[in-house]
This record gives sequence, C-alpha cells and structure tokens, in this order.
Amino acid sequence: MVEIETPMVTPYEVLEASGHVESFTDPLTICPKCHRVYRADQLAELQLGIKTEGMTIEQLNELYSKETVKCEACGTRLESVQSFNLLFQTWIGPFNSERAFLRPETAQGIFTAFKRTFETARRKLPLGVAQVGRVARNEISPRQSLIRMREFTIMEFEFFFDPEDGMVLPKEVADIELRIKLSSGQLYVGALGDALKNGYVANAWIAYFMYRTLTFMSALGFSTGEVLFLEKGEKERAHYSSQTFDVMVPTKGWGDVEVAGIAYRTDYDLRHHSQKSGEDLSVSVAISQPYTRTVVRAKVDRAAIGKRFGERSKEVIDAINQLAASGMPHGKVILNLSFGSVELDEGMVKFEEVSERVTTRKFYPHVVEPSFGADRLLYAVIDHSITEREGRKILSLPPILAPYDVAVFPLIDDEAMKIKALGLVSALRSSGFYVFYDDDGTIGRRYARVDEVGVPWAITVDDRSLKGEGVTIRDRDSWQQWRVADDQVLSVLGRLRSGEKLYQMDLPKER
Amino acid sequence: MVEIETPMVTPYEVLEASGHVESFTDPLTICPKCHRVYRADQLAELQLGIKTEGMTIEQLNELYSKETVKCEACGTRLESVQSFNLLFQTWIGPFNSERAFLRPETAQGIFTAFKRTFETARRKLPLGVAQVGRVARNEISPRQSLIRMREFTIMEFEFFFDPEDGMVLPKEVADIELRIKLSSGQLYVGALGDALKNGYVANAWIAYFMYRTLTFMSALGFSTGEVLFLEKGEKERAHYSSQTFDVMVPTKGWGDVEVAGIAYRTDYDLRHHSQKSGEDLSVSVAISQPYTRTVVRAKVDRAAIGKRFGERSKEVIDAINQLAASGMPHGKVILNLSFGSVELDEGMVKFEEVSERVTTRKFYPHVVEPSFGADRLLYAVIDHSITEREGRKILSLPPILAPYDVAVFPLIDDEAMKIKALGLVSALRSSGFYVFYDDDGTIGRRYARVDEVGVPWAITVDDRSLKGEGVTIRDRDSWQQWRVADDQVLSVLGRLRSGEKLYQMDLPKER
Repeated sequence: MVEIETPMVTPYEVLEASGHVESFTDPLTICPKCHRVYRADQLAELQLGIKTEGMTIEQLNELYSKETVKCEACGTRLESVQSFNLLFQTWIGPFNSERAFLRPETAQGIFTAFKRTFETARRKLPLGVAQVGRVARNEISPRQSLIRMREFTIMEFEFFFDPEDGMVLPKEVADIELRIKLSSGQLYVGALGDALKNGYVANAWIAYFMYRTLTFMSALGFSTGEVLFLEKGEKERAHYSSQTFDVMVPTKGWGDVEVAGIAYRTDYDLRHHSQKSGEDLSVSVAISQPYTRTVVRAKVDRAAIGKRFGERSKEVIDAINQLAASGMPHGKVILNLSFGSVELDEGMVKFEEVSERVTTRKFYPHVVEPSFGADRLLYAVIDHSITEREGRKILSLPPILAPYDVAVFPLIDDEAMKIKALGLVSALRSSGFYVFYDDDGTIGRRYARVDEVGVPWAITVDDRSLKGEGVTIRDRDSWQQWRVADDQVLSVLGRLRSGEKLYQMDLPKER
Repeated sequence: MVEIETPMVTPYEVLEASGHVESFTDPLTICPKCHRVYRADQLAELQLGIKTEGMTIEQLNELYSKETVKCEACGTRLESVQSFNLLFQTWIGPFNSERAFLRPETAQGIFTAFKRTFETARRKLPLGVAQVGRVARNEISPRQSLIRMREFTIMEFEFFFDPEDGMVLPKEVADIELRIKLSSGQLYVGALGDALKNGYVANAWIAYFMYRTLTFMSALGFSTGEVLFLEKGEKERAHYSSQTFDVMVPTKGWGDVEVAGIAYRTDYDLRHHSQKSGEDLSVSVAISQPYTRTVVRAKVDRAAIGKRFGERSKEVIDAINQLAASGMPHGKVILNLSFGSVELDEGMVKFEEVSERVTTRKFYPHVVEPSFGADRLLYAVIDHSITEREGRKILSLPPILAPYDVAVFPLIDDEAMKIKALGLVSALRSSGFYVFYDDDGTIGRRYARVDEVGVPWAITVDDRSLKGEGVTIRDRDSWQQWRVADDQVLSVLGRLRSGEKLYQMDLPKER
C-alpha cells in the first residue's frame, strides 16, 4: 500500500473519461412559484413514503405527474424533475481557457497517476494506493450536520489486483462474523468465508476489505453487530461499479448512516482512461509458468502490395495479419476488404510458423475501492461515544481517539501542588504522552471539562501527594479513582494505553 | 495552539472583505500575434535584467512602452500589461446562484471561524490557530517543478495576540543568531534579541516565530547560516501586511527559494471582516489590574428633547453623550449639530459623575502569520539532502524525515537467512519502528535502493548471523558497517533515532 496526493482541480477530460460528466447527477425539482430547489428523489421519499433510490429522471417525472409532491415552503405542487450535475466547475489559466472541475472523489487522481505509481512500486500487483483528501460535490440540499456537506474529506484506497491471482482468504479473515443485507432483501448473518462461497460477495478482495473495515470500525468503538454491509441494487450503484456495499452504522442523531463504501470498480476506470487518453494503462505481469506456443507470422512483400493496392495497402496488410492470427492459411489467400473480395498474387505474402515464448500476460488491473468518509465517521464516533451521567455529557471515546491521553490537575489552588503537577506533566510529555494540564476552577468543573471532550484518565495531585503518597488516577467512564505511587504512574499509564483497565490493576481505591 | 480545518470553497463575500477580490492579482501580458500569456513582471525581469517586483500595472505599462519585451515563442514585441485576478472561481448550488472562489490561503477560514475558536479556547490570548491544507492560485505561468504550482499545500498559523501584552523574548530565543536582509538592503547578522531592539523586527511575536522557524528549518537539515529572512519592501508586501519576512533557503535546482513567510497582518483581517459582515470579531479581555474610574453620565429628558427636536432628537442625544465622554460640562449646554449650533433648555439634560469599574479592554487581536509551503519545503529538503557517492545518488535525509527507520535484508537468497530477517522485521515493527524488508536482487542493489530513498540504516542478516553472531548495521551516508549482537539491535536503533551516531557506539566494525 502506498499513499499519494493528487490535485483537487481536475481537467474536464479526466472526468469525461471517467463517466462523471455524464453520470454524476442528482434529480432536481424546482418550485415554480417560490423557486426553491429540492432533490426530487429525497423529497418524494419523504412525502410519499416510498423508496426512490435509483429511479431514473423519466421514472421520477412519471411519479411526480401521478402523485402529489409539494414544495415544503409554499405548498405549490411540484411537477417536473430534471437532472443536475454535481461537479463544481471552474477554469484553469487566464481567460477561462481550460474547463475543469473540483474532484468529486480522490479516486480519479489515483487512476490517472496509476502508471507512474505502478512503476515506482516495481510493477507488482496487488498494489494498494491510498489518498486522503478533500472532495467537493455541489449537493442540491446539504443537511444533517456533518452527514451531507458540499465539501468533505474522504479516505480512499484503490486496490489494484490481477483478477486471476487466485487470492484465498486467510482463516482468521474467513472466520469473522458479519451482517450483510443483500440487494435481494435477504439478511445474511454469518462467516465472511461462507458469504464469499455463497456468491454474496463477488470476489475475495472485496471480502478481505470487508474484514479490514470491520477491524477498523471496531477500533473506533463499534461492535461487529452494529456494522451492517448493505448491498446496493443494480440501479442504485454508481456507474462504474459492479458490486457495492455501503457500510452502515446506527446513530442517535440521524438513524443509520453510511460511513464507508466498498465498490468493485472492475477495470472500468483504467480501461476508459486508456481508451479516451490513448495512454495504455494496462499492465504486463510475468506469469508463473512461462510456456512456448506456435504462432503464424506473415512475411509481406510491401513493394508488391503497394504497387497493386496503393493507398489501400494498409488495409490489406492489416487483413493479412488478422488472417495469420487465426492460424496457418491454406491454398490461395483471399481477403474480404471494404472495397470487395480480393485474391493476393503469388509471392505477395508468405506464412511461416514460429515458436514464441510467452512470459507475460497483459490486462487492465481490477480495482476494489474501500472508501471512508472522514466527516461522517467523526460524527458517528462522537454520536456513538456520547453518554450521560448525572445530567452531564461524557464522551467515552476509545483512548486512541481521545484528544489527550491524560489530564493532570492540582486538587486545589496551592503552589506546591501546582509545582508537583507540572513536574508530572513534563515527565509524562517526555515519555510521549499527550497531556492536558488545568488549574483553573474547581476540581469538579475540571473533571467535567475533560469528561466532555473524552480524555480517558485524569491524574490529581492532592495533599497526600505532597507527603510522597502518590497521586490519584480517575477513570472517565466510571468516575472511580485509584491511588498510584509516584514511581508507578508511567507504567500504569502505559498499561492503560495498551488496553488494560484500572479496576484490573489491584490498586488501592479512593473514596 | 489549536488546529482547525475549514472549507476550500469560499464565498465571494469573504474574499471581498479580505481584499483578495481587489488585490490578489498578477500583471499579465499577451502576445498580440500568437496569444501566449506571460506574467509581465517576471518576463520583463528575465529579458531586461531589472527588478520589477512590486511595480504597479501603470509602471509596467510604462516600462513595456519604453523598453522592448518580446514574446518568448514568436518574438513579437509585447506592449500592454493588464491585471489578472488569481482566484479560481466557481459557484455554489444549482443554477450558479452563489459565486465563490477556491481559497488562495487557509488564513481566511481561520479568521471567519475566529469567534467560535476563541470561545472554544476559553477566550484567552494569545491564541494560535493552525491549518494545513490545499490552496489554489490561478497562476499565469506555473513552473519550476514543485516551486510554482496552481494547487499546493500550505501550513499556516494565525497567531492572535494582544498588542499590549508586553511579550518579552525568553533568553534562549533572544540569543539565537540569524541572518536578516532588511528591505533597506542592509544585511544584519546577529542575535535575534538585538534585531528586535534595533527595530528591524516590528514586534516580539514576529521575532518569536523567526526563532521557531529557525528551529524547524534546523530539524529539516538546514543550518542557521543557510536560512535567510528577507524583509519585503512596502510595495512588495501583500495588501494586509505591515511587515513581512520571506524565509529563503538555497537550492541547487532553482537558486534561493522562498519556503515560508512570516507576515504581521496586524488587525487588518478581523477588522475588515467585522466591518463588512457586521459580526463583531473584537475581543474583551480581563485586564490584570482592574481599576475604578470616574465617568460622566448624561441623564436625558427624552420627552422634552423629542418635543423640541422631533426627528433630530437622535443626533442631539448622540451629541450629548459625546460631550459627556469628554468630561463634566460647565455652564450652558451648547451643541454643534448638522443643522446649526443649539443651546439646550434648562432640565433637558443633567450630568453626573459616576464610578465605573473597568475590568476589561476591547480590541481586535493582532495577528502574526507564519506560513510554510509544504511542497516547496519538500522540494528544498530533497534538493538539500541529495548527495552523490561513486556516481550513485544518496538521499541524506534527517532520520525523522526518512520514509523508513531501517531496512532489513538477508545477505543472499537463503531460506534460513530470510526467516531470521523476517523475525527481526516483526520484532522491530512491534517496537514501533517503520521497517522496509527486501530480498529481491543483489545486496549491493538493495543497499543502493534504500540509499536512494533515504533510509538511514540497513541491517543485514549474513552467515555469521545464523551462528548467533549478530547482524550488521550499515550507515547510509558513510557506507560503513558495524556488527551488533542480536539482543542489542533494538537498543542500538533506539539510540540512533535519538541522535547518537554508529561510530560513537564502540561496536566492532565490519570490513
């Protein structure tokens, strides 16, 4: 896996080749009276309570003419639906000379840079290329906090592989349990390996990234049972995808939210960019068992052909080569050409069998794309981590996501306590801990502040600390406190960071 | 210091308030014959060998009419210069309803988010707000590799401070030696503290960030003597700045390159955004020594004033309050108003002295902006780190910038050596080292590969390693090797990472 960075401003030609100029659209409806603009599918879904995802403009227009959908602001009936392209448009250079768009995904930059990346990675597959970056989609109606914004950050992998690589899932990957809602409506709950065997998942690399997604979501605090892989129907998928799973997690604020997607883009993008740009993005890989084959080669007398066929010689020679490719011709050479059937003269061409060593195979790599929405994940994690205790908000973030490893407080406004606390802060910082120090306000208020932003542990220097009797360490989620000897603080924090819990550590409890 | 992220797509109004719509321009000249476009100042500088930075459009037009500047492509004389705005334009929402630009700097997002950030940071100054992100400038002629691109990444701090905070440089900051080329042309080489005392540096916070810049550049491998702070002249500075230092480093590829800038933006941005948006971005800070002052308050008989002055009452009352602000009036109250001088009737106003406790001061924070170009720094660091040895390129990156901490190689294609090497890779990785493993090709070729990408150390497992006699560790820059016992590898690497050198470690040297 390598990480690259490519520009946001993307030439028109790139997004034309990728199909975005044609297909990256949303259906839109405008109120004829107050001119408010709505996403036609979402508005119909909201008002009519039917599923509209994947409907064409024609289907939506039919729906709008049969059913009554009204402007949410003025109540006027909305009757027509049109297509709206979501690309933000701009121009490169003075005088608007070169039309361009803001990228709607980081993927296209990875595809157009594929040749160079592949060479840098020593021409080996599989090759994962990652990019984290801003993308922009000119959404008709951005809404729901961080969930639907016009500009956001995605974390994408384009994983290039040989579709004939015979990838087999390792046992620990195959054995993981997961939930898949298939596009047929069926809910599958079981082992990933079986889902692959049953054909629910189109190939082993998609399955592998479902596993990695689950592992990642678990590090963010979600249990396997909270993550649902939702297979998109044929009409709901993006134009480049032959199988897509949305990764859904529940939120208190906005219901089930799609925080990631795994799309099987096949060779769609590399093939289309090759065709449109003329730059060959296919790869040749060494095959494991080179072999020798016999092929027919045509030796052409160009002078004789030129003399007889003139400007048409190229067509004649192409036809001869095509004939050779299908095996050794017998008898007279008769070609079917655009200007009629012709028989070649004696000596114009001689065919011979030659041995050819085959050591490589040429193809467009296939692509599985796991793509994560950074903003939506942030929202979902915070939504998932907020708990309440005695009317106060606590952000129970997994320690790796916490803004600080630990807080350090002097219990009261006392010079000696502050000095000892600040000494501890220095010691912790030089051991690589990210420490928040605060001596402002009551201790209760300070605990509340760090609970609210998710700092998992708080160390307090009290009067006993000044007598060499250690410090207290408080757990954000249980509010319980234990006493730790001065020379144990670093090792206790180290153990906490690697997953141990305070109550398992046999420390004296504070009241 | 806090880090935030704000959008790239920026509403028109924001960049109008900041002055970019008017002032973020470059002079441009077009060939009347072949229509090629040039940056007029740079082309004149190149062809005439004179300094043109900071020239106005009028001055450049005069220059182009007096001197002969020619199209580089077709030789036609270029005669007119015009202004070109470098903002990339786009529209938000359907139907191009809302005009917007791609941000040319991350700073404006920090300014428009200032109020919320300040509140989150508990309303305390100084407050540093950092942002790393893409910016876009529609350069007329991008060139010189990573040096002048249309889209690039900057790392900016907007450091908000109270201009009356009496900041004093700590001794270790004041004592650092640096080189400043003043806008007068004078080269100052000496202590930073003296530069501040002499008035070369406008305030202590600018000086502080010059110190931090030097420290940072030193971590990237540049010596103090290689860094030059170049003060910009009044006409060369951006429209918002009252003092600017470009931070210059030498490169082999493109001469002296500006990799950073420190600008004193004063209260320009917060003041202009407040004025244009109507949102008050000034702050009130508690003053350290609250005091009581006597002020004069006017008690106004509104009814009486309304009766006599009607619609003009507001102007009268404003004038009364203004009079009160300048102290206790004596005798008759005579006001100079837009409609003439008037004497107030008895009883219309009574003045009294009241005690007022002053606990806060209200002002727009001032801003020092250290801003670093990520791409240019990357270029400069690589340019600075490339050395050659026996015809091969070596990238002598500081270890903290290296793509891997260490490489691990089996000496030859031997199963036992590979197994031992891979065991070492696992052990190193679980101790937090970033390790590159390679067993492909000759050992010389593998050393060359890691030298070329800057991996500082390479460990080789050889035949002696299989007898328990440790491994060799090779230094990228000297190509010398030492033998390290198996159980010493981790601690030796740890010491290397914290700055020790192999030749200082008293290890047995390999031949």
